[in-house]
Amino acid sequence: MQSAYLIAPKRIAIQEAPLPEPGVGDVRVKLKLVGICGSDVHLFLGHRLLERPGIIGHEGLGYVDKLGPGVVGRAVGERVVIEPNIPCGNCRQCWTGKANTCGNKRTIGLNEPGCFADYVIVPVDFCWTIPDTISDQDAVTVEPTAVALHALLTAQAKPGDTIAVIGLGAIGLLVTHLALALGYRVLVTELNRAKVSLAEGLGALAVCPMGTPYEQSDTLAESWLRYDVRTVFECAGAALTASLATAAAPRGAEIVLVGLSAKPATFTPLKLTREGITIVPSLIYDHPDDFRRTLRLIEAGVIQPGFIVSGYAPLSDLQAALDSAAQGEASKLVIDLTLNNSHDPYPTSHGPEKPD
Amino acid sequence: MQSAYLIAPKRIAIQEAPLPEPGVGDVRVKLKLVGICGSDVHLFLGHRLLERPGIIGHEGLGYVDKLGPGVVGRAVGERVVIEPNIPCGNCRQCWTGKANTCGNKRTIGLNEPGCFADYVIVPVDFCWTIPDTISDQDAVTVEPTAVALHALLTAQAKPGDTIAVIGLGAIGLLVTHLALALGYRVLVTELNRAKVSLAEGLGALAVCPMGTPYEQSDTLAESWLRYDVRTVFECAGAALTASLATAAAPRGAEIVLVGLSAKPATFTPLKLTREGITIVPSLIYDHPDDFRRTLRLIEAGVIQPGFIVSGYAPLSDLQAALDSAAQGEASKLVIDLTLNNSHDPYPTSHGPEKPD
Amino acid sequence: MQSAYLIAPKRIAIQEAPLPEPGVGDVRVKLKLVGICGSDVHLFLGHRLLERPGIIGHEGLGYVDKLGPGVVGRAVGERVVIEPNIPCGNCRQCWTGKANTCGNKRTIGLNEPGCFADYVIVPVDFCWTIPDTISDQDAVTVEPTAVALHALLTAQAKPGDTIAVIGLGAIGLLVTHLALALGYRVLVTELNRAKVSLAEGLGALAVCPMGTPYEQSDTLAESWLRYDVRTVFECAGAALTASLATAAAPRGAEIVLVGLSAKPATFTPLKLTREGITIVPSLIYDHPDDFRRTLRLIEAGVIQPGFIVSGYAPLSDLQAALDSAAQGEASKLVIDLTLNNSHDPYPTSHGPEKPD
Amino acid sequence: MQSAYLIAPKRIAIQEAPLPEPGVGDVRVKLKLVGICGSDVHLFLGHRLLERPGIIGHEGLGYVDKLGPGVVGRAVGERVVIEPNIPCGNCRQCWTGKANTCGNKRTIGLNEPGCFADYVIVPVDFCWTIPDTISDQDAVTVEPTAVALHALLTAQAKPGDTIAVIGLGAIGLLVTHLALALGYRVLVTELNRAKVSLAEGLGALAVCPMGTPYEQSDTLAESWLRYDVRTVFECAGAALTASLATAAAPRGAEIVLVGLSAKPATFTPLKLTREGITIVPSLIYDHPDDFRRTLRLIEAGVIQPGFIVSGYAPLSDLQAALDSAAQGEASKLVIDLTLNNSHDPYPTSHGPEKPD
Ligand SMILES: NC(=O)c1ccc[n+]([C@@H]2O[C@H](COP(=O)([O-])OP(=O)(O)OC[C@H]3O[C@@H](n4cnc5c(N)ncnc54)[C@H](OP(=O)(O)O)[C@@H]3O)[C@@H](O)[C@H]2O)c1
Ligand SMILES: NC(=O)c1ccc[n+]([C@@H]2O[C@H](COP(=O)([O-])OP(=O)(O)OC[C@H]3O[C@@H](n4cnc5c(N)ncnc54)[C@H](OP(=O)(O)O)[C@@H]3O)[C@@H](O)[C@H]2O)c1
Ligand SMILES: NC(=O)c1ccc[n+]([C@@H]2O[C@H](COP(=O)([O-])OP(=O)(O)OC[C@H]3O[C@@H](n4cnc5c(N)ncnc54)[C@H](OP(=O)(O)O)[C@@H]3O)[C@@H](O)[C@H]2O)c1
Ligand SMILES: NC(=O)c1ccc[n+]([C@@H]2O[C@H](COP(=O)([O-])OP(=O)(O)OC[C@H]3O[C@@H](n4cnc5c(N)ncnc54)[C@H](OP(=O)(O)O)[C@@H]3O)[C@@H](O)[C@H]2O)c1
Ligand SMILES: [Zn+2]
Ligand SMILES: [Zn+2]
Ligand SMILES: [Zn+2]
Ligand SMILES: [Zn+2]
Repeated sequence: MQSAYLIAPKRIAIQEAPLPEPGVGDVRVKLKLVGICGSDVHLFLGHRLLERPGIIGHEGLGYVDKLGPGVVGRAVGERVVIEPNIPCGNCRQCWTGKANTCGNKRTIGLNEPGCFADYVIVPVDFCWTIPDTISDQDAVTVEPTAVALHALLTAQAKPGDTIAVIGLGAIGLLVTHLALALGYRVLVTELNRAKVSLAEGLGALAVCPMGTPYEQSDTLAESWLRYDVRTVFECAGAALTASLATAAAPRGAEIVLVGLSAKPATFTPLKLTREGITIVPSLIYDHPDDFRRTLRLIEAGVIQPGFIVSGYAPLSDLQAALDSAAQGEASKLVIDLTLNNSHDPYPTSHGPEKPD
Repeated sequence: MQSAYLIAPKRIAIQEAPLPEPGVGDVRVKLKLVGICGSDVHLFLGHRLLERPGIIGHEGLGYVDKLGPGVVGRAVGERVVIEPNIPCGNCRQCWTGKANTCGNKRTIGLNEPGCFADYVIVPVDFCWTIPDTISDQDAVTVEPTAVALHALLTAQAKPGDTIAVIGLGAIGLLVTHLALALGYRVLVTELNRAKVSLAEGLGALAVCPMGTPYEQSDTLAESWLRYDVRTVFECAGAALTASLATAAAPRGAEIVLVGLSAKPATFTPLKLTREGITIVPSLIYDHPDDFRRTLRLIEAGVIQPGFIVSGYAPLSDLQAALDSAAQGEASKLVIDLTLNNSHDPYPTSHGPEKPD
Repeated sequence: MQSAYLIAPKRIAIQEAPLPEPGVGDVRVKLKLVGICGSDVHLFLGHRLLERPGIIGHEGLGYVDKLGPGVVGRAVGERVVIEPNIPCGNCRQCWTGKANTCGNKRTIGLNEPGCFADYVIVPVDFCWTIPDTISDQDAVTVEPTAVALHALLTAQAKPGDTIAVIGLGAIGLLVTHLALALGYRVLVTELNRAKVSLAEGLGALAVCPMGTPYEQSDTLAESWLRYDVRTVFECAGAALTASLATAAAPRGAEIVLVGLSAKPATFTPLKLTREGITIVPSLIYDHPDDFRRTLRLIEAGVIQPGFIVSGYAPLSDLQAALDSAAQGEASKLVIDLTLNNSHDPYPTSHGPEKPD
Repeated sequence: MQSAYLIAPKRIAIQEAPLPEPGVGDVRVKLKLVGICGSDVHLFLGHRLLERPGIIGHEGLGYVDKLGPGVVGRAVGERVVIEPNIPCGNCRQCWTGKANTCGNKRTIGLNEPGCFADYVIVPVDFCWTIPDTISDQDAVTVEPTAVALHALLTAQAKPGDTIAVIGLGAIGLLVTHLALALGYRVLVTELNRAKVSLAEGLGALAVCPMGTPYEQSDTLAESWLRYDVRTVFECAGAALTASLATAAAPRGAEIVLVGLSAKPATFTPLKLTREGITIVPSLIYDHPDDFRRTLRLIEAGVIQPGFIVSGYAPLSDLQAALDSAAQGEASKLVIDLTLNNSHDPYPTSHGPEKPD
């Protein structure tokens, strides 16, 4: 099969690899669409290193191609999305309902072969059948939508409350979309004007502070207090924005950390303690609830997350697509394994259906 | 009556003041013992400024002296401790069970006349009758013990789990004492050798890291992981220690912020998110539960918090006592309003009963 | 003013009463529309007795008519809905965030003069200004919608999960409407075919068991397990249905009690314990969050609760309207104080706007 | 090896069985002491049927005798207690931190060979090494103490609050002992005067209502309100007592169901809802936290659960011991596999050390 290996920072090599065989309890999936995630970009740029050259990519949509031994009740040909994080099931995090932070988890596209390839192997319980009413474009965004849903459900804010979202990449846009659909009021903060407009189009209110960090913090604090923000979602993934969140959060609020900055951010213990402000992390999703919930919300027509897809490219263009994703203008680029001429112009779509 | 006014940073003036009259629903308390708290020291040193010269002190033990109009079911002469924080009862924090962080709360010794005086006025519901079986020395420490209990009950760690306490001032020692009495395993970290020994005497294990902050963080991280620490209590009140807590907390742990550093501390979003680590504030106590619980735990013989009292002084020596408290050697100095010669040597006691 | 007194079971007398004056912090509201609630019917039928003849009714929409002393920031003429339950603010339930179950609460239309009258007095904080974008018909249902929202937010089930609702009176229909709007899957159980059809029209799935209670329980248990029900909402208010809920709830589920049956229902400790099933009560709403959330959800277009209104009647027809409500066919009858000919046929509407 | 088979209701047969071999990840334990639990009595009496004749008993203390393949870091000869419930690790209950109610769990002495035998096979992670400072008598009660601890930690009541315990069998006595040691105030209700006296000796207050269920309910309601009970623990395992708990619980309280009555108990929805009363189940314990906590609490000297042991018998007397346990006078009978003459009088001890 065709596979895209990350062989060194910024170097993708498309190579032939042997067709993998599903083990006991696994299925083999023939991939059709695979989204490019910010963490693929981080691996591509070398911010974080793979242990050895490997296939990255974990936002995979495809068709069940072969059932491993012991798999029952599933059929070859089913359209599926994969849930790429597989907790160990046997550590304290796993036993206590916190398997999302399992220290031993296997992750497809990180420490297991990933989705930028014709086929991938997945344990059957981590392979979700997609109802026909869900379009490919919505389906390929299920994984990041599950991340956003988990963050939203982690928060103390409830439908009808006001939240703030910092950073409108794929994750921040999806938190905003989900929250608006579920009746939250949403204040968004983002540098890129086009992304702000997209969020405003969804119904969000923009608060875009200028000036020094102190001035930005004052502006945010004033708005967030006035609008009675209950939860701040840090989705920019920068140390500065995490610091702004802790500095500007109003009394009684909480900060949900979704962004994964590796640089130190700041907080003032006196402020957090006096004002009763909590900092809560949100990592990926809870198996199996969050994927199931995400699929149901799409199926019910409550959300249409496919709107974040900004373009499609063939596997042969993965290197270029990763370069482009690293620029940060596109919300979500998707590799389409059925496209085969690398010189097609990228089709783009913001509608609910992928154009043929 | 005799009252000690804080008239300027580091300047206490003992003055005659008119005897205050209890309003509707209030009682007047004739004070006997009043503990010196770290926050009194902060006000004394001018780190935080009173709006106008006033009487500080809020850890008051005394006797009911006069009932205000409408007070029923209480009697003059009852021995009482005062609960000095009075939430407004009518803001969102108050309505949602978070009155400890009410932004409008009245605090005796801060924005209401305090306890370094012969008498103080308190709403009757904030004035707790002390059973005869509780000694004066235990009773005068009820307020900081309620702070420590609230912090302990805020945590996800349960009896039989391991916790870490950074900073062994009055608050850290009381968290340690309470936790050990309730069957937690406790690791303590503190610079002052004498305080470490006191905690070891209670049954704690000491982890006293040396070197650069990075080295300290590594030492703490290694110990906390090995001992399976579930909750880290930051009770030193320094930015450095708050930063160490966030850097060294093991997977799945939480950090309870008790210390009130006004300087920025640091955290790494990637670490907190990947490892599922939460930062939770703990401020004072919940009215009326925490005072009631604290009194019951003392009465049941489960705790004897009076051990933190390191000495007694007359009101006329308040200035000297605050100076001495600012040095940080003593765990808890107590003003005894029945002592009247400022040149008595300070009696000291660590026993359960105050010597006459 | 015109007032409708409940002078004996099943006897309403329309009488002139003096215009009430707003006290400190109160406002006087000139009423326009007042919904008839199941609890009004219970009082009317004498199932529960008022202490003395009084004005019932608490689902009031009207206009601010006069501000009491001390009220600032509000204006005469504002369109408002009233929040009729006023917790004491000073008991343990109130201090711990559970003011909905305050034992001392004042309730308009129960132990305070109610809304079946031209005017009512309400504390200003319990009087909610309605944005112009919300129709009268939606606005007059805010109170029961807040009951339904509180029940939904009490549950562990989250958007995307499946819930079951037993009983499709006003409350059950509103829980169903809210849940569907927020992306839950909803199974409904109800005797009245018309109400079942209404819920199916909203998107719910009907499970209408027949036969003996054992057979009904088996049918429900089988469906609820198959559909993976997380929370069962008992909204029928009957002992039988509460017993069915506890007997049929699947492993790990919870039962939210909304219905107020005064007769004993049953549960089997062995089943609840083995299968980890919890029984949780939900009473009215949390002040001030749930009214605010409800208004925001209507304003955002996420819900349109006015659909439950089945007809309007003048105050002079209150007796007849209560008789009719007692039959249980209508979801929600509304008294319109601007109608004055008791022999008009009742206008009815299921649209979002009340017809003129 | 010698094994005691339950071959029919009330019929134990001591038979030779082949020595079992530990599988991958298992250890073989040579048993020394095995407690008789209420559920062994239920099986013995035929209230619940084994699928086929089997070895019951799950409260086992012994020594590691052989390590299965793949077991590392453990040594033959270690003194261990076994944790007999082994969740599947792969169902929704397991994934969400509720493995105690896993529907697929394996239970030693129920659907796996039990401990009334010379040897038993246990997965290594469910085999807890006992520190030397813990006596055999305390160690053999670790399993029921973990049940009691889990129940106590399930409750909203915190140290310093008041709880009520109904039923003073082994479980109720252990809840009482734990709660008193951790500073709760405890009201106990039990029919057997000797057990009441034992609890009073520990520091509990007795409330023993008489008369009809209505009169009993009134007596309990009055006491529980006066003493401000927060949580009621139903540990009698009878439908009547579960009904009394729901009828008498004060406003805001919760009922923790520990007892496993298979008969229907009653509750009044109106009361639970109006007064905000919750019914919460508590089943066994959370792996691995509750065993670890229990061992730590014993090691720290906070609890000495061995006091519930009322006597020892040889395996050959198991039938007689089960008959005697079925009478309900003894708190906890223990089979001692080192005793070999069935006509020894039973040694009894309430001290911390088992007499030789
Ligand atoms: N917790 C989890 O489970 C999880 C899962 C997936 C991803 N993540 C993390 O979540 C973060 C967001 O992911 P993503 O895929 O959405 O990334 P992304 O596309 O890089 O989005 C980040 C957005 O934040 C904006 N931003 C940067 N600095 C800002 C500032 N000072 N103020 C306002 N906005 C600012 C960026 O704007 P510009 O484009 O103009 O720079 C960009 O639009 C990343 O850190 C990612 O690693 C976490
Ligand atoms: N959250 C609340 O409701 C609440 C209530 C009361 C007090 N507080 C706060 O809680 C904190 C503790 O109060 P306290 O009265 O116990 O104060 P304290 O007496 O000043 O105690 C602080 C202790 O921390 C130690 N410490 C300082 N830096 C350290 C380091 N790098 N490593 C280890 N230990 C270090 C100090 O040791 P040295 O003496 O050697 O410097 C001292 O023993 C203060 O910030 C106070 O303002 C909070
Ligand atoms: N917790 C709170 O704060 C709160 C607030 C308001 C109301 N409530 C209570 O909530 C309940 C519902 O209120 P509501 O105003 O919606 O009352 P309602 O109009 O009387 O609705 C009850 C519905 O349940 C149906 N029902 C009765 N028995 C049934 C059965 N065996 N199976 C299925 N359906 C059955 C009834 O059908 P039929 O019409 O065919 O009988 C009716 O449609 C009442 O008990 C009310 O007192 C509680
Ligand atoms: N949830 C769990 O994980 C778990 C685990 C183990 C056991 N259990 C269950 O917990 C319950 C207690 O277990 P156990 O081993 O302690 O059983 P037990 O020895 O049978 O204890 C029950 C006690 O309740 C007393 N009692 C019975 N009726 C009473 C009444 N009306 N009022 C007051 N007291 C009454 C009994 O007194 P008399 O002796 O005078 O009858 C007896 O002392 C059982 O139902 C058992 O199955 C649950
Ligand atoms: Zn794991
Ligand atoms: Zn307040
Ligand atoms: Zn109240
Ligand atoms: Zn399981």
